[in-house]
Amino acid sequence: MTTTEINPSTRNGVDTATLFATLDAVRQAPAAAQFQFRAHNEWINGTHNRSTIRDFFGVGEERAHERTFVFGADHPAVLVGHDNGPTPVEFVLHALAACLTAGLANIAAARKVTLTEVRSTVSGDIDLNGILGLDADVRNGYQQINVRFTVKGDAPADVLRDLVEQSRMRSAVYDVITNGVPVSIDVDVK
Amino acid sequence: MTTTEINPSTRNGVDTATLFATLDAVRQAPAAAQFQFRAHNEWINGTHNRSTIRDFFGVGEERAHERTFVFGADHPAVLVGHDNGPTPVEFVLHALAACLTAGLANIAAARKVTLTEVRSTVSGDIDLNGILGLDADVRNGYQQINVRFTVKGDAPADVLRDLVEQSRMRSAVYDVITNGVPVSIDVDVK
Repeated sequence: MTTTEINPSTRNGVDTATLFATLDAVRQAPAAAQFQFRAHNEWINGTHNRSTIRDFFGVGEERAHERTFVFGADHPAVLVGHDNGPTPVEFVLHALAACLTAGLANIAAARKVTLTEVRSTVSGDIDLNGILGLDADVRNGYQQINVRFTVKGDAPADVLRDLVEQSRMRSAVYDVITNGVPVSIDVDVK
Repeated sequence: MTTTEINPSTRNGVDTATLFATLDAVRQAPAAAQFQFRAHNEWINGTHNRSTIRDFFGVGEERAHERTFVFGADHPAVLVGHDNGPTPVEFVLHALAACLTAGLANIAAARKVTLTEVRSTVSGDIDLNGILGLDADVRNGYQQINVRFTVKGDAPADVLRDLVEQSRMRSAVYDVITNGVPVSIDVDVK
């Protein structure tokens, strides 16, 4: 398989020259890697609410995405909502798929593997007896999550598998979901 | 404050009669509460990929949302992407805000508290020396997450604060993020 790239440093849509330059820059100035991401949420009605994602902090200063991203969330009718968006727990699955896939493309590019297809289905099993308060032995969240990847590219099977494994080893969302993160909650009432 | 509701069982947009009927139904048939949620992701280019959310399993059968939800994710330019969507880690923050807020509205309705405003900002601190592989002592994921709520409604401050606390106690995403979930990954290579 031969792929012609206009920019020889670009593979899989990843500008590897910039990627390596970024790594070098952070190696020289580790504080640049301190980021804070944010979501601003507004309740609409019932289980329907909406988050706005735009501002973040990184590389020493306040920044913003090129545009504002807005996402609704809701419950389906079977969970007493109006289905104006996915459930919050479904967004967790999207986040995991997206993080593993972005990492995979970067790692493939760094290893000079050209990918032709990456698909995944992330499924999470949850027993709602937990959040409904009906069984104290059942946790509120997912009991387990499975990711099934299909990966195609110009490398042997074991090399393609190693890309997924390295992405898992360096995935922020995989770490958050498997190892947990402390969460503090502050409340202003009016 | 007096609020006139067309349906007397509806408060905060939550149909409390249906909510309590659902609880009773699950109490009688706990297996109905076994759900599986899913996201189907497709790599597009570089760090840009897209998830489709539609099908899920619950109350004993395969189901689907009323429409298909599609969300892109990407990295901003400063993280060597093209900013076609929020980062995966930002979707985690949205999921947390959405889950806590939906629960809060349900719990308020069950406790006959009428809410007039619920806003939150979720912020997550992350040191990218972890995912960049530059410091083995730095984790890949968020180091801490903070949620700051503003809640207004027709109840005393302590009652409003208790709504947030009860929502935290019953939040699926809060549990996932703070306690972690086992994740298995299967790879088909072609």
